[in-house]
Amino acid sequence: MKSKKDFLKEEIKHIDIKQHNVVQLVDAMEHMAFSARNLNRAARIYDMMLKDKECGIILTLAGSIFSAGLKRVVYDLVMNNMVDAIVSTGAIMVDQDFFEALGFKHYIGSPFSDDNLLRELHIDRIYDTYIDEDELRICDETCGKIADSLEPRPYSSREFIWEMGKYLEDHGGPKAEDSVVFAAFKKNVPIFVPAFSDCSAGFGFVMHQTQNPAKHLSIDSAKDFLELTQIKLKSNETGIFMIGGGVPKNFTQDIVVAADILKEDAPMHKYAVQITVADERDGALSGSTLKEASSWGKVETTFEQMVYGEATVVFPLVAGYAYHKGSWKERKPKEFQKIFSGENIIA
Amino acid sequence: MKSKKDFLKEEIKHIDIKQHNVVQLVDAMEHMAFSARNLNRAARIYDMMLKDKECGIILTLAGSIFSAGLKRVVYDLVMNNMVDAIVSTGAIMVDQDFFEALGFKHYIGSPFSDDNLLRELHIDRIYDTYIDEDELRICDETCGKIADSLEPRPYSSREFIWEMGKYLEDHGGPKAEDSVVFAAFKKNVPIFVPAFSDCSAGFGFVMHQTQNPAKHLSIDSAKDFLELTQIKLKSNETGIFMIGGGVPKNFTQDIVVAADILKEDAPMHKYAVQITVADERDGALSGSTLKEASSWGKVETTFEQMVYGEATVVFPLVAGYAYHKGSWKERKPKEFQKIFSGENIIA
Amino acid sequence: MKSKKDFLKEEIKHIDIKQHNVVQLVDAMEHMAFSARNLNRAARIYDMMLKDKECGIILTLAGSIFSAGLKRVVYDLVMNNMVDAIVSTGAIMVDQDFFEALGFKHYIGSPFSDDNLLRELHIDRIYDTYIDEDELRICDETCGKIADSLEPRPYSSREFIWEMGKYLEDHGGPKAEDSVVFAAFKKNVPIFVPAFSDCSAGFGFVMHQTQNPAKHLSIDSAKDFLELTQIKLKSNETGIFMIGGGVPKNFTQDIVVAADILKEDAPMHKYAVQITVADERDGALSGSTLKEASSWGKVETTFEQMVYGEATVVFPLVAGYAYHKGSWKERKPKEFQKIFSGENIIA
Amino acid sequence: MKSKKDFLKEEIKHIDIKQHNVVQLVDAMEHMAFSARNLNRAARIYDMMLKDKECGIILTLAGSIFSAGLKRVVYDLVMNNMVDAIVSTGAIMVDQDFFEALGFKHYIGSPFSDDNLLRELHIDRIYDTYIDEDELRICDETCGKIADSLEPRPYSSREFIWEMGKYLEDHGGPKAEDSVVFAAFKKNVPIFVPAFSDCSAGFGFVMHQTQNPAKHLSIDSAKDFLELTQIKLKSNETGIFMIGGGVPKNFTQDIVVAADILKEDAPMHKYAVQITVADERDGALSGSTLKEASSWGKVETTFEQMVYGEATVVFPLVAGYAYHKGSWKERKPKEFQKIFSGENIIA
Repeated sequence: MKSKKDFLKEEIKHIDIKQHNVVQLVDAMEHMAFSARNLNRAARIYDMMLKDKECGIILTLAGSIFSAGLKRVVYDLVMNNMVDAIVSTGAIMVDQDFFEALGFKHYIGSPFSDDNLLRELHIDRIYDTYIDEDELRICDETCGKIADSLEPRPYSSREFIWEMGKYLEDHGGPKAEDSVVFAAFKKNVPIFVPAFSDCSAGFGFVMHQTQNPAKHLSIDSAKDFLELTQIKLKSNETGIFMIGGGVPKNFTQDIVVAADILKEDAPMHKYAVQITVADERDGALSGSTLKEASSWGKVETTFEQMVYGEATVVFPLVAGYAYHKGSWKERKPKEFQKIFSGENIIA
Repeated sequence: MKSKKDFLKEEIKHIDIKQHNVVQLVDAMEHMAFSARNLNRAARIYDMMLKDKECGIILTLAGSIFSAGLKRVVYDLVMNNMVDAIVSTGAIMVDQDFFEALGFKHYIGSPFSDDNLLRELHIDRIYDTYIDEDELRICDETCGKIADSLEPRPYSSREFIWEMGKYLEDHGGPKAEDSVVFAAFKKNVPIFVPAFSDCSAGFGFVMHQTQNPAKHLSIDSAKDFLELTQIKLKSNETGIFMIGGGVPKNFTQDIVVAADILKEDAPMHKYAVQITVADERDGALSGSTLKEASSWGKVETTFEQMVYGEATVVFPLVAGYAYHKGSWKERKPKEFQKIFSGENIIA
Repeated sequence: MKSKKDFLKEEIKHIDIKQHNVVQLVDAMEHMAFSARNLNRAARIYDMMLKDKECGIILTLAGSIFSAGLKRVVYDLVMNNMVDAIVSTGAIMVDQDFFEALGFKHYIGSPFSDDNLLRELHIDRIYDTYIDEDELRICDETCGKIADSLEPRPYSSREFIWEMGKYLEDHGGPKAEDSVVFAAFKKNVPIFVPAFSDCSAGFGFVMHQTQNPAKHLSIDSAKDFLELTQIKLKSNETGIFMIGGGVPKNFTQDIVVAADILKEDAPMHKYAVQITVADERDGALSGSTLKEASSWGKVETTFEQMVYGEATVVFPLVAGYAYHKGSWKERKPKEFQKIFSGENIIA
Repeated sequence: MKSKKDFLKEEIKHIDIKQHNVVQLVDAMEHMAFSARNLNRAARIYDMMLKDKECGIILTLAGSIFSAGLKRVVYDLVMNNMVDAIVSTGAIMVDQDFFEALGFKHYIGSPFSDDNLLRELHIDRIYDTYIDEDELRICDETCGKIADSLEPRPYSSREFIWEMGKYLEDHGGPKAEDSVVFAAFKKNVPIFVPAFSDCSAGFGFVMHQTQNPAKHLSIDSAKDFLELTQIKLKSNETGIFMIGGGVPKNFTQDIVVAADILKEDAPMHKYAVQITVADERDGALSGSTLKEASSWGKVETTFEQMVYGEATVVFPLVAGYAYHKGSWKERKPKEFQKIFSGENIIA
C-alpha cells in the first residue's frame, strides 16, 4: 500500500508576480470582450485605487487560494503598500498561511484520489492539493497555545492574528519567507477573519476553552465589525479588491452601512473589484453583482467591475498588472493597525 | 418618479411543503439520471436520517433563501422534529427570519432594476427581491436593544438567538406565523450563526458596543464552535442536511474533527446531503464534494449525496418528500437546546 | 474482472408527467424568488402558447436528456398536440430515441467509473449513464441501411427522420412504446436535426457514402434551414420552448431572420422559454439571454423567460404543469409535416 | 435619441500572442493548483502535439470567440503550422471571420443595453459586443452570391469555405489582414463547419435555394463527416485542441469511431485539451470530461486536460505559451486540404 510519503512529494510553489510583467498583455485585453475585457478593467480600477492617495484599500480573500499558490501575491501586495487591510476566511490565514509559517507545506495532489485511503493516511484533500493532517493538528495546537498565553478577555480576530504574527517573531521568525500574517504584522496591516472559529484556530480555541472553563479568552466577532468600521471612518475613501465572495465580501461591504449608522453620510466604497466564478442566479451573496450592492448603498457604480474567472489565473494578472504599473511606489503605507494601538495614522 | 410603494407591492409568500405531496414525483426520479436521480437519493438519505433514531440532524443554511420563500420549509422541519440543530448565515436568521417576525415583508422585484434609483428610495435588492431598507434598520436596532438588555459578557450566537426568540415571546409573539427563530426557541432547537456579526445583528452590536464602550456584551465565535461540538459529542451519530455551502457547511463538518480532538474516535457524520450550484473546480469550500470531506475525516462516504440545483426548486422537493413519507412521526425531539440549560436530553 | 452485464443492470425509466399533477406546486412558486419563480413564469408562458390558437410551438432539445429519462415527457407533448415541430441534436433523436425504438436501453451508471475498463467492455458513459457500444453500432448500421434504401439525392434531416419513423412502422413498430421519432411520424410533427451527421446517423451515412461512392444520398443542412423557415412563414405566430442551448436554440431563433429575408416583416417569436444551466458570461450562444436575442430581432421580450436549472428536474415540472392545466385539450394539431407533402395544413 | 453611430464606436481589436511571451508565467503555474495548474498542463500537452511529428492537430472552436478578439490567435496558429485542420461553428467562421474579411468590424458594447432600442437601430448584441445588422446582411448575401456562382451539387462545408477563401482572393484579398478563412485557404488547412446552415451562410443558402428551386447547391453534412474521418485515417496520430464544446467537440471526437468503422483499429486521439466553463453535472456534451470520452474510445487518457476558464483569458495563454516555446519551427505543414484535391500530403 502507498504511504503518506508517496502522496506528499511535490510542493505547491507560490507564483511571484514580480517576475512576470503582464502590463502589455493585460493592456491588450482592453479591446477584447468577455472576461478578458473585464479583467483589464478590474486591473485598471485597482491601479486607480493605488493612485488615489485618499483611498484605503481593503483586500478580501475567500476560497482555498493560499494552498493553491497565491500566497506570495498577497505577500507582495502587503510588502509594497498595495493593500491597507485584509478581510479573509480563517482557512486562508491560519490553515494555510500560518501553517506554512510554521514550516509546513502544501502538496500537489489529484481530484481523482481515493479519499478513504487519504483519510487512513491522515492526508486532507482540497480539490487537487494535499495537506498532512498531522501537521495541521500542530497548527491547531499552536493556536491553542497562543490562546493559553493571552489575558482572558474578548479579542477581535484582528487582535489575535496580530498575536500570531508576534508569536512568529518571538519564535525565530516565520519558517516561510512569504508569510502574510507576519508581513502584515510588520507592516501594520490589520487582518480580520469575521468567522474566526471556522478554521484551524477554532480547534485551538476549543482546546483552550475546554481546558480553561472558568477563565478563557473569547473571540468577539462584534468587535471585528466595529474595528473594521472604524477603519472605514478613519479612511473615509475606500476601495475593495475581492477575491471570491463569502463572509469576507459581505462583511467588508457592510461596513459602509455600519459607518453610516455611526456617522451620517459615510461614503460608499468608491472602487470595487471582484474576481469570482459564482453565479448571480441563485441569489446568493458570493455571486451577487456590485450593482446590486449599490442598491444597498455599499458600493458606488462608477468604478466597479466583476471578473468571471478562477482566481489562480486571474488574480496574478490583475495584481501583477498593478505591481508593474508601479503606482504603488508613490503610495505611503496607511498602517491602519495603529488605529487600534492609539498611534496616529496618515489616512 | 416612482415611489417606494410602486416597488414594494407584491409580497414573497413562503411555499408550504405540507400542501404538496411530492413522494411519487421524487420516487420517479430514482430511475432517471443527473440532478433528478441525485435529488431522489438525497431525499431518501434524508428520510434515512429521520428513521435512524440515534441520529441527530443538523441543518445548515446559506444563500438568501428565506427572502426567497423557503422560510416555511424550515419552519415545518423544526415544528415536526425533522431537524435538531441549525447552523446558518446571519442574513437568513436575522435580516430575513427575525425581520419578518417583526412584521416586515420581502417583495417581488426584478434583477433588471435601476440600482441607483433603488438606493435613493431606500430599497435593498437581492437579485429579484426587494427589502425596505428603513424596516431593515428597525431590525438592526431591535438587535441592538436586545444586546443592551443583556448582561455584559461573551455570548455564543446560539445564546443570543435564543434571546431573540424570547424577545418575540415577551413582545406579543412573532408577527409572522412561521418564524424559525421563534419555532426553534419553543422547540428547543439550537440555532448557530458562526459569523454572527455579518448581518443585521452586527449593526445592532456595533451600536451596542459603541454606546457602551466600557461594559458590553460580546459574541464569542469560539463558544459557538465549542457548543456545536458538544452537540456532536452528546448525539454521537449525526446527519447533516446542507442548503448551500459557505461557513455553515464548513463549520458543521469541522465539529467532527473538534469532537475527535476532545475525545478519541468521534464518529464522522453518518449521513450528508448538500444542495448547491457551486462548482468544485475553483477549489472553494462551497462546491467541494462530500467525498473530499471524507478525506478530512468529516463525512462518511456511504450515505452522501450532492445535488446540483438551485435551492428554491430542489429544497421543497427533498424536504417535501421526507415530510410526506412521514418517518418523522416516530421521531422524538432531541431538544439539544437543553444541553446548554443543564437539562437532560434524550440523545 | 467485472463483465459488461455487471454494469448494464438497472434500466433508465422515463418519467411520466401524466402521473404527477404538479400544478399546485408550480403555482406556489409564483410567489417565491430565483429559479422557482422563473420556473413558474416559464410554465405559465408555455401554457399561454398552448392557449394561443394562432401559435405554432417549436420545441428545441439539447443535452443528453433522453438517455436521462426525459424521453416520455417529449413523447407526451407530441401525442397531446403540445408541440408542432422539434429541433434537436442528433444524439437525442438517433442515439437515444431511435436506439430505444430498436429495443435497446440506457442503464444507470456512475460518474466515478473506470473509463478505461468501460472502454474495454464496450460500454459508453454519459456522466452517470451507461450504453452498450455494440448495440449503438447496430443503431449506426440501421441508419446506414435506411440510407442505402433511399433514392440518392439531398435530404433534409426532417425527411430522413421521417424515413426512420417509416422504417419503424415497416418493421413491426417501435420496440419502445414511447418513441418520439415514431410518435412524430404518426402525428405529422416534423423533427429537424441541423447538425445531423454529428450522431449515430452520421456513422451510418459514412458507411453509406463509402460503400456507394458514385451514387449516394446526402444530408442537406441548407434544406433544413429552408424548411424550418417555411414553417415559420406558414405559422406566422410562433413560440419556442428550449431545453438547453446549442445549435437547436440558435437555428430555431434564426428562422425569424430567414423569414424576414424571404418576406418583409415576419414577426419575432412571440413566446420564448429556455431551461439551461449555461452561463451568459462566456458570451456563448447556449447561455445568451432571450433579451439579447431580442436585439437580433428574433424574440419578443414580452413573454420570455430563462430558467436556471438542470433539465431532469425542471423540464418535468414545466411540461407537467402545462399538461395538467389542460389547455392543450382545446388545441388542434398543426401537422406541419404536411407542409412538405403538399397537403393543406390548419395553421 | 441615440443613433447607431453612438453605439458602434470602439472597435474590438484582436490580441496578438506573438507580442506577449507568457512562457515564464505559464511555467510558474505548473506548481500551483486549480485552473492555473490545469492551464499549464494543457499548454504543455499542446506543445507536445507540436513536437510530435506524426501528430495531426485539429483545432475545434465554439462560442463567440472571434468577435471577442481571439481571431488573430487562430490566424497565427494557422500561419505558423500549429494547426492542421479546424472544426468550428458557423458563426465564428462566417459571421465573424468572413464578415471581418469583407471589411466590417465588431464593436465594444455593454451587457446592460436596451435590447429593444438596439433592435430598432439594427444593432445585434453578443453579450458585451455589438454588430451592425445591416453589414451582417451583406455577409449573408455574399454567401448567397458564392452559392449562386457554384455548380449545383452537394458540397461539404470544407469545400464551400475553400470557395469563400477563393472569393476573397478573387476580390482583391481580404480587407482584414488576419482572416482565418483566407489564411487557411492559402495554407491548405481545411475548415469544417458541421452545422453549416446555422450561421450567416445559412441565410445565403436559403436565398440561393429559394431563388433556384430546381437546380441549387446543397450542403452535405455527411460529406463533412466522411472528409474529416479521411483526415483521421491519413494522419493516423492526432491531437485535438478544443475551445469550448458543442458540435465541433463532438464531431471531432466522433471521427475516431468513424475511422474505426471504416478500418479496424484506428487509434484514439493521442492528445486532447479543452478550454471550457461548461459544467459536467448536467450531463451535456460541452462539459463532459475527456475521461468520459475515453469510455467511448475517442480519447486516450494519458495526455488529456480540461481547463476550467473563459477562453478570452485562457486561450491566449495556452496558445501564446506554445508559440513562444517555438516547437512549431521544426514542424512541417500537413496541408490536409490536399487530401481532397488529389495531391500528395506529407502525413
